[in-house]
Amino acid sequence: MFFSFDGIDGVGKTTQMQLFCQWLTDQGHEVVTCRDPGSTALGERVREIVLSSDESTPISARCEMLLYMAARAQLVEEVIRPALASGRTVVSDRYLLANVVYQGYAGGLAVQDVREVGRVATDALSPDCTFVLDMSPAAALERMGDELDRVESRGNEYREQLREGFLREAAHLGDAFHVVAADRAVDEIQAEIRSIAQQAMP
Amino acid sequence: MFFSFDGIDGVGKTTQMQLFCQWLTDQGHEVVTCRDPGSTALGERVREIVLSSDESTPISARCEMLLYMAARAQLVEEVIRPALASGRTVVSDRYLLANVVYQGYAGGLAVQDVREVGRVATDALSPDCTFVLDMSPAAALERMGDELDRVESRGNEYREQLREGFLREAAHLGDAFHVVAADRAVDEIQAEIRSIAQQAMP
Repeated sequence: MFFSFDGIDGVGKTTQMQLFCQWLTDQGHEVVTCRDPGSTALGERVREIVLSSDESTPISARCEMLLYMAARAQLVEEVIRPALASGRTVVSDRYLLANVVYQGYAGGLAVQDVREVGRVATDALSPDCTFVLDMSPAAALERMGDELDRVESRGNEYREQLREGFLREAAHLGDAFHVVAADRAVDEIQAEIRSIAQQAMP
Repeated sequence: MFFSFDGIDGVGKTTQMQLFCQWLTDQGHEVVTCRDPGSTALGERVREIVLSSDESTPISARCEMLLYMAARAQLVEEVIRPALASGRTVVSDRYLLANVVYQGYAGGLAVQDVREVGRVATDALSPDCTFVLDMSPAAALERMGDELDRVESRGNEYREQLREGFLREAAHLGDAFHVVAADRAVDEIQAEIRSIAQQAMP
């Protein structure tokens, strides 16, 4: 099984992912976690390039989208597919969905183009189950305190576009994408995630 | 006008490009040259990553294709489109065609997928005129002497696949792609290139 967690920054992905992985392990699953972009040598170099982009190394939205796709292609081939092939359970911190939302819905690229490049980059590997943690950008911002990164320091309108993008894309993608209200107690959210996972598991 | 030169390594692209650019300048064109991948800060970083890939940073064919696409997206937006918009003539050392041939025809990825990602990466910007310099891989190899790079040191069968890929893709792409026999005297080849360019220019 392949699970992923997504949503705007500050919704509590890390906490929920940790609790979920612990639960999977307790259930007897061998769990492999990864983050996208990242978790391969190439992915970390791409991450570094994007995060350090400035006037001396400008990166357009289109270029950034393709760099993330390159990192994802390597992640799929080097980490995710081998883990799945050996019967392990993979849990990824973000995946293609974030790319479609950040560079498509909120970044100005054609959403259908980003989806199509994503199909090629992942060789059509999609998570069996994606949890889209959702709360209002204002609440997420409050939770984050001073930890705003480059991307999410762009203001409230942008964060509203992101949230809207996640909700619309999740609805478009259908049954494997589950929007989970994240403005609740940690254990309440986790209970819903586990219940969804249980239904998705064979 | 936007020109590009392509073909397997060793066919004499650099020499022909230099002569062609000199001729364009003599005709009163303001010429901007670039190489793909390269010619932007991001493109040079991508080039560096791909060329230094080894066991510690493995890069799959799919990932490599997407890294080149990212570099090309930045090249188009930062260099090529602004140059064309200001009335300059652009001459590029390689472009999308090479990506389709190296990672598609010879690299095992679906050719149609590479074309499609290429359309997104370039935002559908294609050269007005591409010169595909063609000669037998054996002859090209002889011309190169010891300068084989990582990619083309893979043996004769691989180089034959590359040549075949260039010829098939040029035929598929149609009128803007011209195969020029490159196993002739330098000035004879150049004369044909100029004649083709003259017919393509308004």
